[in-house]
Amino acid sequence: MDAEIIAVGSELLTPQRIDTNSLYLTEQLNALGVEVVAKAVLGDDRPRLAEAVRAAVARSDILILTGGLGPTEDDVTRDAVAAALERRQVFHPEILEAIERRFQRLGRRMADINRRQAFLIAGAAALPNHNGTAPGQWIEHSGRVIILLPGPPPELQPMFSEYCLPRLREALPAEVIRTRVLRVAGMPESDLDQRISPVYLEYRNPVTTILAAPGDIQIHLRARSSSEAEAERLLEELAGKIEALLGENIYSRDGAPLEAVVGELLRARAATLSVAESCTGGLLGERITSVPGSSDYFAGGFLAYTDRMKIELLGLDEQLLSEHTAVSEQVAAAMAERAQQRTGSTFALSTTGIAGPGGGTEAAPVGTVFIGVASPRGCRAHRYRFLGNRDRIRTLTAQNALDLLRRAIIGG
Amino acid sequence: MDAEIIAVGSELLTPQRIDTNSLYLTEQLNALGVEVVAKAVLGDDRPRLAEAVRAAVARSDILILTGGLGPTEDDVTRDAVAAALERRQVFHPEILEAIERRFQRLGRRMADINRRQAFLIAGAAALPNHNGTAPGQWIEHSGRVIILLPGPPPELQPMFSEYCLPRLREALPAEVIRTRVLRVAGMPESDLDQRISPVYLEYRNPVTTILAAPGDIQIHLRARSSSEAEAERLLEELAGKIEALLGENIYSRDGAPLEAVVGELLRARAATLSVAESCTGGLLGERITSVPGSSDYFAGGFLAYTDRMKIELLGLDEQLLSEHTAVSEQVAAAMAERAQQRTGSTFALSTTGIAGPGGGTEAAPVGTVFIGVASPRGCRAHRYRFLGNRDRIRTLTAQNALDLLRRAIIGG
Repeated sequence: MDAEIIAVGSELLTPQRIDTNSLYLTEQLNALGVEVVAKAVLGDDRPRLAEAVRAAVARSDILILTGGLGPTEDDVTRDAVAAALERRQVFHPEILEAIERRFQRLGRRMADINRRQAFLIAGAAALPNHNGTAPGQWIEHSGRVIILLPGPPPELQPMFSEYCLPRLREALPAEVIRTRVLRVAGMPESDLDQRISPVYLEYRNPVTTILAAPGDIQIHLRARSSSEAEAERLLEELAGKIEALLGENIYSRDGAPLEAVVGELLRARAATLSVAESCTGGLLGERITSVPGSSDYFAGGFLAYTDRMKIELLGLDEQLLSEHTAVSEQVAAAMAERAQQRTGSTFALSTTGIAGPGGGTEAAPVGTVFIGVASPRGCRAHRYRFLGNRDRIRTLTAQNALDLLRRAIIGG
Repeated sequence: MDAEIIAVGSELLTPQRIDTNSLYLTEQLNALGVEVVAKAVLGDDRPRLAEAVRAAVARSDILILTGGLGPTEDDVTRDAVAAALERRQVFHPEILEAIERRFQRLGRRMADINRRQAFLIAGAAALPNHNGTAPGQWIEHSGRVIILLPGPPPELQPMFSEYCLPRLREALPAEVIRTRVLRVAGMPESDLDQRISPVYLEYRNPVTTILAAPGDIQIHLRARSSSEAEAERLLEELAGKIEALLGENIYSRDGAPLEAVVGELLRARAATLSVAESCTGGLLGERITSVPGSSDYFAGGFLAYTDRMKIELLGLDEQLLSEHTAVSEQVAAAMAERAQQRTGSTFALSTTGIAGPGGGTEAAPVGTVFIGVASPRGCRAHRYRFLGNRDRIRTLTAQNALDLLRRAIIGG
C-alpha cells in the first residue's frame, strides 16, 4: 500500500523551517509495511491545497495531511479537504465542549474563533487531541483513507500512535514487520560499521540501517514475515551476532535512551546520583529528570557555572582553581567528589569545559571538556576534545558523562 | 512571481533523510522576490514525476528540480521532464568530452553509463558542473522557466549562484522581500489572534503568519516591494500597530529566543541570575547557558529535586516543607530567595511542581507548578496549571519562568 504526506503551512515554505513530521510518519508507516511515495509542502492556500488533495486521493491509498487545523483564518486544511472531497462540514457540540473544558482546566476563557475547531468534515471520525485543542480527523473516501493531523509534534505523535495506528493495522494486509533498535555509545560510527557490516550485509531480511547522532548510534533492524514468531526469530539471530561483536558498547536493546538506561541501573541497585555541572549548565540534570520517576534516584545537583560558584556552592579550594584552572582534571574530579559528599549520593557526575564559541586558549581550545565520575570506589576524571558548535559540544559532554556513569555502574 | 521545487530521490522518502536543498533555494529565490508556493519530494518514479512536472509547469512561473541527474537507471529526472514537456533529448559531444576530462583529471576511467549525462532536453542550455559530472539544465517553455540541478549541495549551490541567479535576475521584475519576526510569551494563541487579526487582516502586504509553540508565539511579517525602503516602511507600519496592541507581551522584535533576550536585559544592567530547579531538573539552567557568553550573568544554581535537597542544598526550613508541601507558593518563594542569597545574584528563579505522569494529588494534580521570582524588590511566587505530558509541562514551566523574569526586570 502507498501513502502520501502533505504538510500544510506557509511557514514551512520559508528558508527557516522544514517539515519533520513526515519523518516520524514515514517511520510509523514503513513499520506497517506502507511505502511513502510522495511528500509535499503547501502554504495556507485553499484552492491549491484542494487541488493537491484531489490529485493525491486519485492515486494513493492513504493521504496524511499535517498542520493547518488551528483556530485562525489561515488554517485552511479542513476547508480544503472538504472542498476536494465535495463534503460539507458538520458542527459537533461535544467537540466544542471538550475544547471548552480544556480552556477551563487551564483557567482561561475560550476565544470565539476556537468554535471553528469543532467542525468535522461530514462522515469523518474525530481523533481526540490530548495535548491541544484541534481534533484530528479520519475519513474514508472511495476506498482511500485521508487523515488530518495537527502540526505540533507533541500533538501529532500521540494522536497518530493512539488513534491512527490501530485503525491502519486493521485496514492493512497481514504481513508483520518487527523492528529492534540497538543503541551504542562511546564508539565512532565508522569503527562500529567496520566491525559489524560483514555480519549485517549478509542479511537482506532483516534490513539493517545505522543512524548516527552526536555520541549516539542507533542500529535499526527490520524483519518482515507472515508470522510474528518468524520475524522475531530473524531479529534475534542477527541481533545476537551484532551483540557478540559490540559487547557493552551497546547500552540499550529496546531503543530506550541512555538516561533511562542509567536510571534503571541506579534503581536496581537502590543507588542515587547527583551532578555538578559547569559547561553543560543543567543539560545533564535535564536529561536525567526527563525520565518519569527519576526522583527515585536523582538526588539533585549544582550548576556551578563560575569559579566563584565552584568555591561557594561546592566548596572547592580556591588554590586548586588558580593552580589548575577550572577546565582541568583536578577540578572535574573535585567537583564530582564534592557533589557526592554534599548530597550523600552513591554516584556523582561533573562537567567542566569550553563550549565556545569564545573562551578557548592554546592549552584548552574550544571543545576541551573534563568529565568527573565519583563512585563508591573513588573518583576519576576523563579528558575529551569535542569538535563542533556550542550545542554539539554540550550534547556530547552530557552523552559521554552518562555513558561513563553507565560503565562505572556495570563495571562495579 | 511564483516558484515550485521538486526534490527527486527515493532516499528522500525514508525516515532518515530530508530534503534541505529547498531551504537554500528558497532563501535565494526570496531574495529575488520570488515566492516558493509548493515543495514536493518524489521517488525515482518516471511517470509520477512527469505528472508532477506537468502540473507544476501549468501553474507556476519557475520550477526547480533537484537530484536524479546521475548516470544510473534510477536517475529519472531528465527523462521525466522531457516526457512532461514533450521534447526529445539531444546528445552533446562537448558535454561528454567535459565529463571524460573530469575523469582523466581524477585518474579514473569513465564508465559507459556516464554517456547518459551528455544528453540535454531539446532547447535546454547546459549549466556547467565544476564539482561533479552531471550538468544542470535551463529550459524556457511557454513563458515558464524549468531548471534541473544535481542533488549534492556542493554541486547544486555553486551551479545555482553562478549560472542561474544572473539569468533569473534578468527574467524578473525588480522586487524585494523583507521579513520581520515578533515573538510573544505569556499569552495564548487564540487571545493573541483575536486581538491582532483585525489589524493584520487589513494588510495583504505584508503577509502575516502566526506560529505557536508551547508558551511561545511567533508573528512572521513579510513585505514585498520594488524598493527596500518601501518594504521596510510597510513592515514598520504593521509591526508598529501590532506592537501597540500587544505591548510588553512582545519579548523579541528580531526573532531572538527568550533566553537570549533575558540575557541581554541582565547584561545591560550588569545584573546576575541564579536558579533553584525542582520539576525542571536543569532545563532552565540549560536554556540560559545555551546562549554564548551567558557566564557574564549566570551565576549558577541548585537542582533541588528532592525534599531533602531543598533542605540541605538551599537551607529550606523542614517545617515549611511539611506544612505546605514541596509544591506550594511558600516553598517556591523560599527556593528563589535562598538561591538569590546563597549565590549573591541580583535575580533568582525557582520551579517546583508535578511534571507527571505520576505524583499528582487532588490538591495538586499533574501540571500544577509554582514559579518563584526573586528580585532586588522582593520575592513572589506564581501558580500555574499546565496541561500535557511531562515534556510539555517542563517546557512550559521553563518558558514561563523566563518570561516572569523578563517582566520583573523591565518592570523594575
